[in-house]
Amino acid sequence: MPKLIDSHKRKNQIAEAAWKVILKLGLEGASARNIAKEAGLSLGSLRYYFDTQEALLEYANELTSERITQRVDEIFENDNNPKEKILQVLFELIPVCGDLKQEAEIRLIFKTHALHKREAYTADKDGVYLAIKNVMSNMVLLNLLKKELELSAETERFFAFMDGLALDSLLRPGYLTDEKAREMILYHLRSICKEDIG
Amino acid sequence: MPKLIDSHKRKNQIAEAAWKVILKLGLEGASARNIAKEAGLSLGSLRYYFDTQEALLEYANELTSERITQRVDEIFENDNNPKEKILQVLFELIPVCGDLKQEAEIRLIFKTHALHKREAYTADKDGVYLAIKNVMSNMVLLNLLKKELELSAETERFFAFMDGLALDSLLRPGYLTDEKAREMILYHLRSICKEDIG
Repeated sequence: MPKLIDSHKRKNQIAEAAWKVILKLGLEGASARNIAKEAGLSLGSLRYYFDTQEALLEYANELTSERITQRVDEIFENDNNPKEKILQVLFELIPVCGDLKQEAEIRLIFKTHALHKREAYTADKDGVYLAIKNVMSNMVLLNLLKKELELSAETERFFAFMDGLALDSLLRPGYLTDEKAREMILYHLRSICKEDIG
Repeated sequence: MPKLIDSHKRKNQIAEAAWKVILKLGLEGASARNIAKEAGLSLGSLRYYFDTQEALLEYANELTSERITQRVDEIFENDNNPKEKILQVLFELIPVCGDLKQEAEIRLIFKTHALHKREAYTADKDGVYLAIKNVMSNMVLLNLLKKELELSAETERFFAFMDGLALDSLLRPGYLTDEKAREMILYHLRSICKEDIG
């Protein structure tokens, strides 16, 4: 295998180890030492791939959006009917539903961390934002949306709603269960669609 | 003045100093030392009011919800017409709008911090959740809501939407300005109300 691919694979392994540490200890516990240990690497090997802890965490953050976008593309390319695909994509974005639990949770942890650290955040690099834009343009294509809606306002509203829902699915696990989160998404869709979507 | 009142006042001063430190340095910088310095107190005096830093931060967090609830009550008791009051309350909950910028931002920092620290979060103690419930029951009273709505789902949707909006008003300041956030709230209200509300 060419070295470039090895390096990419190894960086992803380290980033996934960082996710595991974050899920166990929070971002505060995500030291280079803890991540190296989780990845089964020496601190020296880890530093070969990432010069700084900042670079590692940035990579780990970007990998969540990359994975979310990959998964969204996979879903849209599968053989289900279009409405089913839209639902599947939306459920994937909420940590308690879908297969991307880790990615969706880590993404939210990084996003809210930007608030604590006063760091830059760019919606156009956010896998969830891109997924919502994707879903909305597909709903336009399928002529599902009610006539009176403003597309850009609806997109922003949907994005804010999904972030709040994702946050609360993690903070109120007893109340906002997988099932309840799915119901909420269906409720929102019914309010913006001309016809029943799921 | 009785000592109890002094103590309450002093605790609030310390909590407000904690807010200032958090807004400057993030929660990571909110050490007892930094807060004492900001409050102009010795570490010893600060410890007289709060045994532990945890107790101090919990108090500082609860004070945000208390202030939000106070402000909501004040607005509902003023002489404006009911629809104006509802709008005023909702705008107050978004950090970039209204007078409670500090409280609204600090509340969100604490809420998302619960995610990082895997701490407990209780919606029923959250000033914003209580305000949204209050707004919704007032809209029921005024017969403003569209007939087909489910009150409990609408309340949860509104709450998730407001949290996402508050988060993005802080993370995307160039895009989600005060004006834009107000427009988004009005857009949401138009979608759930029978008549124009603002």
